[in-house]
Amino acid sequence: MRIQYFSEAEYMSRLRRVKVRMQSEGIDILVITEPANIYYLSGYDAWSFYTVQALLVFQDVELPLWVGRLVDSQSAHVTTYLPGERIIPYPDIYVHTPDRHASQFIADVILRESPSVKVVGVEMGAYYYTARDHAEFVAAMPNVRFKDAELLVNWVRFIKSDQEVAYMRQAGQITERMMERAVEAAAPGVRECDVAAAVYHAQMTGTEEFGGLPATSPPHMGFGERVREPHPIFSDRPIDPNSVANIEISGCRLRYHAPMSRTVYFGKPPQSYRDLASYVIEALDVSLDVVRPGATCEDIELAWQKIMSAHGIEKENRLGYSIGIAYTPTWGERTASIRRTDLTVLKPGAAFHLMAGLWLKDTGITITQSFVVTEGGYEPLTRTPRALIVKD
Amino acid sequence: MRIQYFSEAEYMSRLRRVKVRMQSEGIDILVITEPANIYYLSGYDAWSFYTVQALLVFQDVELPLWVGRLVDSQSAHVTTYLPGERIIPYPDIYVHTPDRHASQFIADVILRESPSVKVVGVEMGAYYYTARDHAEFVAAMPNVRFKDAELLVNWVRFIKSDQEVAYMRQAGQITERMMERAVEAAAPGVRECDVAAAVYHAQMTGTEEFGGLPATSPPHMGFGERVREPHPIFSDRPIDPNSVANIEISGCRLRYHAPMSRTVYFGKPPQSYRDLASYVIEALDVSLDVVRPGATCEDIELAWQKIMSAHGIEKENRLGYSIGIAYTPTWGERTASIRRTDLTVLKPGAAFHLMAGLWLKDTGITITQSFVVTEGGYEPLTRTPRALIVKD
Repeated sequence: MRIQYFSEAEYMSRLRRVKVRMQSEGIDILVITEPANIYYLSGYDAWSFYTVQALLVFQDVELPLWVGRLVDSQSAHVTTYLPGERIIPYPDIYVHTPDRHASQFIADVILRESPSVKVVGVEMGAYYYTARDHAEFVAAMPNVRFKDAELLVNWVRFIKSDQEVAYMRQAGQITERMMERAVEAAAPGVRECDVAAAVYHAQMTGTEEFGGLPATSPPHMGFGERVREPHPIFSDRPIDPNSVANIEISGCRLRYHAPMSRTVYFGKPPQSYRDLASYVIEALDVSLDVVRPGATCEDIELAWQKIMSAHGIEKENRLGYSIGIAYTPTWGERTASIRRTDLTVLKPGAAFHLMAGLWLKDTGITITQSFVVTEGGYEPLTRTPRALIVKD
Repeated sequence: MRIQYFSEAEYMSRLRRVKVRMQSEGIDILVITEPANIYYLSGYDAWSFYTVQALLVFQDVELPLWVGRLVDSQSAHVTTYLPGERIIPYPDIYVHTPDRHASQFIADVILRESPSVKVVGVEMGAYYYTARDHAEFVAAMPNVRFKDAELLVNWVRFIKSDQEVAYMRQAGQITERMMERAVEAAAPGVRECDVAAAVYHAQMTGTEEFGGLPATSPPHMGFGERVREPHPIFSDRPIDPNSVANIEISGCRLRYHAPMSRTVYFGKPPQSYRDLASYVIEALDVSLDVVRPGATCEDIELAWQKIMSAHGIEKENRLGYSIGIAYTPTWGERTASIRRTDLTVLKPGAAFHLMAGLWLKDTGITITQSFVVTEGGYEPLTRTPRALIVKD
């Protein structure tokens, strides 16, 4: 049994693009530990990244090596295109043991495959590449030079293929349904966790044609006073009448994400809050008009800021970030950010969450849009109207 | 607004126990980055650990300092007992930027608070303490000696208080309901993702008295051939008739977990499979009989192995692990493991998942039990019968 969601040709093209970057960085072997990058290059998909695992890409060998925990190696046989001999398991005694470390095992594999290796690239700031993983690596390969290759693969992922965009569209369709269910379920007196239950149910059910997966993050839902927080966890308290809720969610299709936030007002919003919403929506629309190949990330933020400044509102945090494949803890790709000083040039196939959330001293509002850059501008990944939702 | 699920006295007692360990390790300041440890010592709870954040515990200052992203600092004001001046935000320009790093900001805070600090403890192998986080720390504090304090707080967490056990019991009640819903929903022809939807819905809904939270991990559900994998992700394929499914789940109450696995057989299991199930259940029961204060983790595994060896079955991976508070990616505490060579002595208040899963060449079975050690033996955290579930 093999499960494969992309053609082998697509995987080979991804590998080639990674090797071009390795070459220009002078890297002989790239040790990939970020789960999204492992998935991108091999298809490997299992919840095993809480133990040490790596995909090793050799500049001078066609196929990578997968190294991970023995019990999880069966998942590598099922979910990757790799032939059996490129899947190398380590025994369980390396798992959560104080006196042994799986980095030592991986280092042995590297030195056996390539005894004269000079430069090894590692993803220094990647999730699940801990300080200890690295220290054990350095100790086990004293004659190797380590080079930081964080985001090397992430930047290759920055431009999505047609098949990737197709999966992101499906993720977006799931997102729309999740939001519909959330808004239906949420009402004064209903417990926050019961809204979350509706969201999760819709997230996995997906559509009749395709199912969903859990996203990298729980729904970020702030109710009442907690709309001032971007990443609170919901509770079992009932929703108050005459209150606001921010709901940030993402459908997930084969690890591809398409996030969206909306704000729901329970009761009659005062004019001041309606005004705030109209400023955000205006600024969002104007920012989206800037999106086209050749524009920079900074350009989008400047367009937003121009409108918001006119209304006297400052947004301290960035306006958005690149999206695509992601594993917990975040659906951001950690490459381009929509903010001043980010001069990344937009190209067709780049995808972003324009996260126009405001978490202010006395209230909050989050109305956002995910999109993919096209030849002519952008394609929205969700079709939910950009509006304040009022449940009166 | 303040949300607090433990008394301030309990937090102070936790802090004192951590400081005793710091003293014996010669650590002046402990930089805590593992989200579960931050939560344990401060109550801080938000999905912000995808950016750099830390709780700083000073040997000679009563209260810790929280340092994190500005937009998330409001969550620190709401969820911790810390006075405002012990909550220190950094601006957004430190988030996912190549040329700046939040470790530099945290180092500045440390050196300002304690200019003559000599020894700083860091959690080298903790999730979300990346190789780069550490490298930037070392560069920013050249006159400081760094000491690995991984698991220092985790070991303080090893013995649960009465209030913690009460929350774990609630988590167990949610787990039971999740499993009921999963078994109800699963049937030949039903899509795997629709079983997941039922599980997630029950997980958040909890009970009428209290709600649930998402666990650290998606339900680990292997259907058909994939019962040979411990951590596969479900798909949208329909369940086959005459097939097996492993379902590993955990209810979560205020970040406390109580995991459980069961195997469901769709159709009439052959005698060989019924035999396998009876061996696992026998070995599980015998292992649980060993659990009491004074026994070691190894003792439990030896009891299991004795039964299984008699039936000619080997389990390559460990038999279980300590549980309690957890954030993604795993509900294991990473301290004691139930396996040979682990001589950790059981004490009242220690809690484990006896994860008697077998992932074999041709099939798999997972029937497990979470429990807390009591004065007289153990208390099961879930009451679901330990049996093979047959849906014929």
